[in-house]
Amino acid sequence: MRTRRTSAHDAHGRGRLLTHGAFWRILRPIMSKKLDMEILASLCKRRGFIFQSSELYGGINGFWDYGPLGCELKRNIKNAWWKHIVRTREDVVGLDATIIMHPAIWKASGHADGFADPMVDCKDCRKRFRADQLCEEQGLELIKDGKTVALPDGAKCPACGSRNLTAPRSFNLMFKTFVGPIEDDSNAAWLRPETAQAIFAQFSNIIATARQKVPFGVAQMGKSFRNEINPRNYTFRSREFEQMELEFFIRPDEAVELICGRVTTLADKPDLTGEPQESWGWEVWLHYWIEQRLAWYRSIGLPAEHLELYWQTGDELAHYARACVDIEYAFPFGVQELEGIAARGDFDLTQHQRHSGKQMDVFDEALKQAADKLDAAAKEAFTEKVVAEWTARNQSPEAARAFVAKLFEGKYVPHVVEPSAGTDRLALALLSNAYDEETLTDDKGKTDQRTVMRFHPSIAPIKLGVFPLVKNKPELYAKAREIFAQLQRRWNCFWDESGAIGRRYRRMDEAGTPWCATVDFQTLEDGTVTLRDRDSMQQVRLSVPELIQKLDTEIG
Amino acid sequence: MRTRRTSAHDAHGRGRLLTHGAFWRILRPIMSKKLDMEILASLCKRRGFIFQSSELYGGINGFWDYGPLGCELKRNIKNAWWKHIVRTREDVVGLDATIIMHPAIWKASGHADGFADPMVDCKDCRKRFRADQLCEEQGLELIKDGKTVALPDGAKCPACGSRNLTAPRSFNLMFKTFVGPIEDDSNAAWLRPETAQAIFAQFSNIIATARQKVPFGVAQMGKSFRNEINPRNYTFRSREFEQMELEFFIRPDEAVELICGRVTTLADKPDLTGEPQESWGWEVWLHYWIEQRLAWYRSIGLPAEHLELYWQTGDELAHYARACVDIEYAFPFGVQELEGIAARGDFDLTQHQRHSGKQMDVFDEALKQAADKLDAAAKEAFTEKVVAEWTARNQSPEAARAFVAKLFEGKYVPHVVEPSAGTDRLALALLSNAYDEETLTDDKGKTDQRTVMRFHPSIAPIKLGVFPLVKNKPELYAKAREIFAQLQRRWNCFWDESGAIGRRYRRMDEAGTPWCATVDFQTLEDGTVTLRDRDSMQQVRLSVPELIQKLDTEIG
Repeated sequence: MRTRRTSAHDAHGRGRLLTHGAFWRILRPIMSKKLDMEILASLCKRRGFIFQSSELYGGINGFWDYGPLGCELKRNIKNAWWKHIVRTREDVVGLDATIIMHPAIWKASGHADGFADPMVDCKDCRKRFRADQLCEEQGLELIKDGKTVALPDGAKCPACGSRNLTAPRSFNLMFKTFVGPIEDDSNAAWLRPETAQAIFAQFSNIIATARQKVPFGVAQMGKSFRNEINPRNYTFRSREFEQMELEFFIRPDEAVELICGRVTTLADKPDLTGEPQESWGWEVWLHYWIEQRLAWYRSIGLPAEHLELYWQTGDELAHYARACVDIEYAFPFGVQELEGIAARGDFDLTQHQRHSGKQMDVFDEALKQAADKLDAAAKEAFTEKVVAEWTARNQSPEAARAFVAKLFEGKYVPHVVEPSAGTDRLALALLSNAYDEETLTDDKGKTDQRTVMRFHPSIAPIKLGVFPLVKNKPELYAKAREIFAQLQRRWNCFWDESGAIGRRYRRMDEAGTPWCATVDFQTLEDGTVTLRDRDSMQQVRLSVPELIQKLDTEIG
Repeated sequence: MRTRRTSAHDAHGRGRLLTHGAFWRILRPIMSKKLDMEILASLCKRRGFIFQSSELYGGINGFWDYGPLGCELKRNIKNAWWKHIVRTREDVVGLDATIIMHPAIWKASGHADGFADPMVDCKDCRKRFRADQLCEEQGLELIKDGKTVALPDGAKCPACGSRNLTAPRSFNLMFKTFVGPIEDDSNAAWLRPETAQAIFAQFSNIIATARQKVPFGVAQMGKSFRNEINPRNYTFRSREFEQMELEFFIRPDEAVELICGRVTTLADKPDLTGEPQESWGWEVWLHYWIEQRLAWYRSIGLPAEHLELYWQTGDELAHYARACVDIEYAFPFGVQELEGIAARGDFDLTQHQRHSGKQMDVFDEALKQAADKLDAAAKEAFTEKVVAEWTARNQSPEAARAFVAKLFEGKYVPHVVEPSAGTDRLALALLSNAYDEETLTDDKGKTDQRTVMRFHPSIAPIKLGVFPLVKNKPELYAKAREIFAQLQRRWNCFWDESGAIGRRYRRMDEAGTPWCATVDFQTLEDGTVTLRDRDSMQQVRLSVPELIQKLDTEIG
């Protein structure tokens, strides 16, 4: 059995080493097209999508910059996510918190103690390696005993070959810094390894101000940092990256049961694409968010056949998690996680309640009213039922009783479903998915090669190229400028007047621009332009209002 | 004479202590309305604009989170800036670089050595203070001798009163961290104290890929970090903050002269609001950007009378800067900088050229053609003219000759004009400017107080409140939902069905929502809604298409 560490970028992958039997998943042929990451990286650099950070000084491992086209792509992704998750929903609000927060937050979350990789040092060449990766590369298996790990016999230094290695020691993945002028432990702080914790830490402020009631969500986008030992797979595992996280707070199932009489489960076959229902339990909410997120990925152009769900198995799950599913994409280097969606129970808020000493429970008027209608016998029966359920899940009867007593007062600590996505991973998936090379044959049988980035119009960095057919006809040129100015007010357009039209098309193909509009002599007569489609290379004549209508519909 | 340190958030304020004689500027009455920052902070917390970071754990000094309304406000500011600077211009492209970069970048930029404050320690109570602030608070003057500073007699510890203080020592304001598993100096890295340097470091990659020629700009928005000793004035001087920076690269004036025959200066009274001209020299470009930026501030609702220009004087300017102007806003706590616009010459690119050993010059076809037309005598005359000008500015004749020789090959290191704005400062200015309390008198002479945030529609977090007049008429309710759903597709709208209409208006007033649309019985008859204006409180009836037209026009 091989070890598989959950992706270090997802909110739930908190330094646990996970065993994973699905060996075949890594080895089987995964790609519908063979794309070499080097070819993609080369295009990304050549066209200004992605540069190595600090390349001028030899680069810095695990850090990547987004160039002119790349930053527009990333902006489009983030805006699409925000629109999907926050702006078009009434039950989600936003947060924009700092990257450096009080260190107590990482104590409460478990990151300060548990967010670590096991490292070994070579005593001869003094280099340092991740113990699990070292074993994996040498066909060995790391020895695990609860939380401690040991190297198997035969492990050697990947750099110098020495067997003189230290025992694995825990290395925290959070970047450390110091706030204020004195560099000592009392001033130590960390760069956030995930955006999620700020949402939990600000939960009370948000619920006091946002005029929301459970169920509702809080969303945040922003940079996170993990001091990965081995950044790899191009931008996939970086040390500085961006996340898009939603914490969707729901009632505990027991509260739903008191309010609605029963809890809707998957067995009831609820409609997951319609309006959420009050009777939904956590399991339905989890599946609702899976459906929402899959639909969104499809809407920005990731084909359903390249998306997979991977359900974490019992021993992979964190102890507090009810369930966790990864939405995976078939990258050229393997099927890897884009997003984790976890049902985390009340673990996070309860941890912060314990560490801060401040109550995290909410008052739920509907719950109080429902509880008040029960007589003493009904309350007793309900309590015993919950105690039995909790005991079956190895939770203490005392905790169950305290929880139910709170419920009867209308109070609980909300549970949470967390869809947590990586922006850079998604950008990489969209770039990989868009890349295509096509051989074209002209009328005379001459072949030509074109590289085309087949982005969905909604995320394409440039929406439209606008070309004057020729430069030296003032009237035509002025008309083209006029049309360009009009369209540029609405969309990111690109003006190109140099070279043959065919070459201008090719340049826009590489940038992933879905359409090009050429202003020619006929434009001066009837106001129509030639619109060329990136994918079909078909050309049609459209009036400018028709063009605007088309872009409006297709960009969304 | 008092000392005034340039704002630590602007790109040019690199740890220099600046003397500034304009004492009156600090003392004179600056506010058209008296707004206590505590009152503003209280509203910001109550309505979810701004929370203290990590408040649950007692907070962390100098860090602020943006809540549901605040993060929408900040998103609107950033989107408006991007639209103004990048999307609607053909001569500016974007960049999104990492916060952690190669440490050599901060060597080249001067931050590693010069970005520091002078600190003193109290030997008795062991507290640490900024030397200049300690003196200022005690009515003393810091003794300066070139780069070194000393405490004057009489200085004492602000905490315990002891005079047993160390001499001032330099403390770097960059946050330090370590990349990789080993915490030693060879792995030290810094969180960027400004976004600008990434633009210079990626200049070659961008010019190779973006199909731009000088003059053109590169823009970046993002987080920056400065380990301020005394964060203060609410969010104004924070340790983690966001910047919006543009580096606009231009030809050196000498290149313009070769190409155009002469250089347009301010004396020529160029039209600064029209299209930029090829003959513009740096001074005109600087003024062009000042006009652009002032117009933008006015367009998002900052009144011209609250904006001021402050020109840095000779001894305030960095040695390499030709000129620097601060756009200042009359904050409740004083007139302070929103943005600095500096003509920085070729300093930054030249520094990176020197430190990286890689050429930063560009080839300019028009320049080469112009130079090729000159005969030897004309070249000699031009060279001597430039040598004379440079010598008059205390630059070496050898450097001038080398520069001109490059020009004749069509090459130069571009100069730069840098408009550098602080996002959080602008958010604070917009919040301060929007805040208003108004006493209302009804028909019966009863008075009432309302708090209203008078945001410009383009930056208001919520654009429209949509209310059903009553909850219990299904037809009316359904109609209101239908209208809400239609408008929400375009704009951030807020649904409110609870309480009297008057109370719903007041809540939207505090959130700064410019309009509220109430769906009432007449809506069912003729499709019109009652639209109430936040500022005038006037109500008009409009059809939904008329409402959409109005929002379209006024939000922009």
